Amino acid sequence: MIYLDNAATTMMKPSCVVDAVTAALTTLGNASRGAHEGALNTNRLLYKTREKLAGFFGCPKSEQVIFTNNSTEALNIALTGTLRPGDHAVTTVLEHNSVLRPLYRLQRERVVDLSFVPADRRGCVDYADFERLVRPNTRAVVCTHASNLTGNLLDIRRIGEIAARRGLLFIVDASQTAGAVPIDMVDMGVSMLCFTGHKSMMGPQGTGGLLINGDIEVEPFKVGGTGVQSFLTEQPREYPTRLEAGTLNGHGIAGLSAAVDFIRQTGIDAIRAHETALARRFYEAASAVPGVVTYGDFTTWERCPVVALNIGGADSALVCDALSCDYGIATRAGAHCAPLMHRALHTEAQGAVRFSFGYFNTDADVDAAVRAVREIADRIG
Amino acid sequence: MIYLDNAATTMMKPSCVVDAVTAALTTLGNASRGAHEGALNTNRLLYKTREKLAGFFGCPKSEQVIFTNNSTEALNIALTGTLRPGDHAVTTVLEHNSVLRPLYRLQRERVVDLSFVPADRRGCVDYADFERLVRPNTRAVVCTHASNLTGNLLDIRRIGEIAARRGLLFIVDASQTAGAVPIDMVDMGVSMLCFTGHKSMMGPQGTGGLLINGDIEVEPFKVGGTGVQSFLTEQPREYPTRLEAGTLNGHGIAGLSAAVDFIRQTGIDAIRAHETALARRFYEAASAVPGVVTYGDFTTWERCPVVALNIGGADSALVCDALSCDYGIATRAGAHCAPLMHRALHTEAQGAVRFSFGYFNTDADVDAAVRAVREIADRIG
Repeated sequence: MIYLDNAATTMMKPSCVVDAVTAALTTLGNASRGAHEGALNTNRLLYKTREKLAGFFGCPKSEQVIFTNNSTEALNIALTGTLRPGDHAVTTVLEHNSVLRPLYRLQRERVVDLSFVPADRRGCVDYADFERLVRPNTRAVVCTHASNLTGNLLDIRRIGEIAARRGLLFIVDASQTAGAVPIDMVDMGVSMLCFTGHKSMMGPQGTGGLLINGDIEVEPFKVGGTGVQSFLTEQPREYPTRLEAGTLNGHGIAGLSAAVDFIRQTGIDAIRAHETALARRFYEAASAVPGVVTYGDFTTWERCPVVALNIGGADSALVCDALSCDYGIATRAGAHCAPLMHRALHTEAQGAVRFSFGYFNTDADVDAAVRAVREIADRIG
Repeated sequence: MIYLDNAATTMMKPSCVVDAVTAALTTLGNASRGAHEGALNTNRLLYKTREKLAGFFGCPKSEQVIFTNNSTEALNIALTGTLRPGDHAVTTVLEHNSVLRPLYRLQRERVVDLSFVPADRRGCVDYADFERLVRPNTRAVVCTHASNLTGNLLDIRRIGEIAARRGLLFIVDASQTAGAVPIDMVDMGVSMLCFTGHKSMMGPQGTGGLLINGDIEVEPFKVGGTGVQSFLTEQPREYPTRLEAGTLNGHGIAGLSAAVDFIRQTGIDAIRAHETALARRFYEAASAVPGVVTYGDFTTWERCPVVALNIGGADSALVCDALSCDYGIATRAGAHCAPLMHRALHTEAQGAVRFSFGYFNTDADVDAAVRAVREIADRIG
C-alpha cells in the first residue's frame, strides 16, 4: 500500500517511537499514585514530556501543558472551559467538526453566539473579517491553523495580533499543523493550543494536548482522581491536575516524547521541506491532468502537504475506492468532517479526494499516485 | 523491584499485549476516515474488540461498547450523561474520587441529590441500606464493584436486584475488578459498566470503556468529528459514535484486545486463584506481625487481591518509602483517592499502605514483602 492519508493519521511511526512505547509497556507505574521507581518513572516521563512540548510549541509554563487523548478532547476542554453564557466567539468556515460541534453545543446550551469568517472558492479568508466580526461580548477567536480539507494555512500570527488588540482569547486547533509547521504560542499570540499526537507529530494514537499560555481560568471538563489532594470534593485548581482526571496514557506519552525528539533531531524545517516538495510534485502533475479540479490556494507553498481534488463529476468515494482497489493507494474521500468548508467549495455532494503526504513518503509514491489519477481520469473522460 | 502496586496499574503486561501494540504502531490507519486497508484494519480491530469486550462482560450489544481512555472518562460520561436536575442517586462511601467528584459536581451544578451507603470499621456495607436510601426521585444506584483501598467486593448481583426492583439505573465502577473477577452485566443486572484497561485487564494505559446494557439514553460528553454524518451539527445519536468523538486510541485498543485474549486463554478463574493465593499468603503472615493493623473484611476470600495495612501509628508514607528504598518493594501509601473510605476506617490522617498483587507476582515476592513488614515493624516497635 502507498499510504497518502497522513492528514487522517500517520500510519508509519519512527522506530524510536515504537521502541519507546514497547519499553514503556513493561516499566511504567502510575504517576502521582506511589513513590516507588515504577511510579516515579512515569512522573519523570510526564514532567520531561511537558517540558519538551512546552519548548516545542513555545508555551511559557510546562505545568500548563495538559495531556489529552486527542485534539477533540483538548478542544472540548478549551471551549467548554472558557465560553460562558452570553459570550460570543468568532470562528471560521474552515473548521473541523471537532471545533464546530462543541461550539454548536455551547450555542444551544449556554446561548453562546457564533460568527463565521467566510471563505472564497479557493478556501481563503479575508483577515479583515476577523476584526469586523468582533462584538462587545466577544470572548474568543477560535480557529484552525490549517484546513484539513484544502491544506490552506491561516496566518495565525496575524489573527493573534487582532485577538490581542481586542483583548480576546485566541484558541487554535493545530491538529493539521503540530509537527509539520513551526508554532510558537507567544510569538503568534496563541492563548490555547490544541494538538493531536498521531498526525504530523508521528506519535501514537490516544495522545494529544492542550497548552495554555498565560493566566487563563479553564473550568475542568472531566473530574475524578488525581492522586493528590484526595480529600477535596472538587478537582484541584492547580494546573495540570485541574484538567487531567484519571490515569494518563503513559505508554502513549512515552511514544509522543520520542516523537518530539525525532522531529527535533530531523529538523521540522527538513520535514516540512520534504513533505512540501512531495505535495508540490503531486500538485503540479495531477492538476495538469484534463478533468482534474483541485481545491485550495496553490499560489503559495506556505501550506500543508495536502492536495484535495475531484475528477470531473465523479463521486469522490468512487475515485478513492479505485485508487485503493486498483492501485493500492490510500487516500480519503467524502466530507472530511468539514461541512462548512465543503459548502464554501461547493463540494457538499461530491466530496473530494484528499492526498496527504508524510515524512515517510517518497517521490516514487507521488509518481505512482499521479499515474493512477491520469488513468482514472482517462477512464472517466 | 518487587512490584506490589497492581491496583494502581499493572506494570508488567503480557508479551502478546506488547507485541500487539508494537505491530499496530506501523499498520493502523484512522477508522471510519477512509476505505483503504490501513483504515479498514482499524475498523476491523475496533469492531472485533467491541465484540470481544461485549462477550467478556456480558453486554448484549457490541455497538454499545464505548471506548474511553480510562475508567474516569467512562464514569464522567455515564454520570453526566444520565443524571438530570432533580434526580437523586444512591452511592457508597467506598467510592473512588472518579465516582465522587463527578457526583459532587452534579450535586452543585444540576442539583442532583446524593445519599451514601455507609460502611463499618471493616469497610463492609449493609445491603438493606441500598433499598432504604431509595427515594421517589432516585434515578440511579452508582457503586464500585470493589473498594480500591480495602479490596472488599460488593455483591453486585444483590445490588442489581434492588436496582431492577425499583426501576433504577445501576452504574458500576469496575476499575478494580475488570479482568480480575468475572462480570456478567445481564446476570448481575448492571445497566452501565465502567472499566479501565491498564489495571487487572493487563492492557495499555489510555484504554478503557463504558458498556451499556439496554435502551439507555446517554447524552454525549465530548462532541466532535466522527468520520460519519459530517453534515450533522450535533453528535450522531447512534451508539457507539454518539459517545466517541475524535480519533480513538487504536494502538492502545490493539493491546487491550490482546489482553482480553490473554485472560481468556489463561482463564480468569486461574488468574483469580493465583492472585487470591498470593494475597492470602501475605495477609496470613503480615497480619500476625505485632503492631500490624489491616483494613477490610478478611473473613472471606471473595475479595480483590489487596491488603491495606498500617504498622502501629507510623505514617503510611514513611512505611511505603522504607519498603521502596530499603527493600525495593513497590506499594502505595496515602489516601488512595478514597476519602470517605478512609473516614469510615478512621485512617484519614495516617493513610494506609496498600499491597496489591497481580498475575505476574510470585510466592517469593510475597515472602520478601512479609519479611520487610516484619523488619520495619521491629524497627518501629
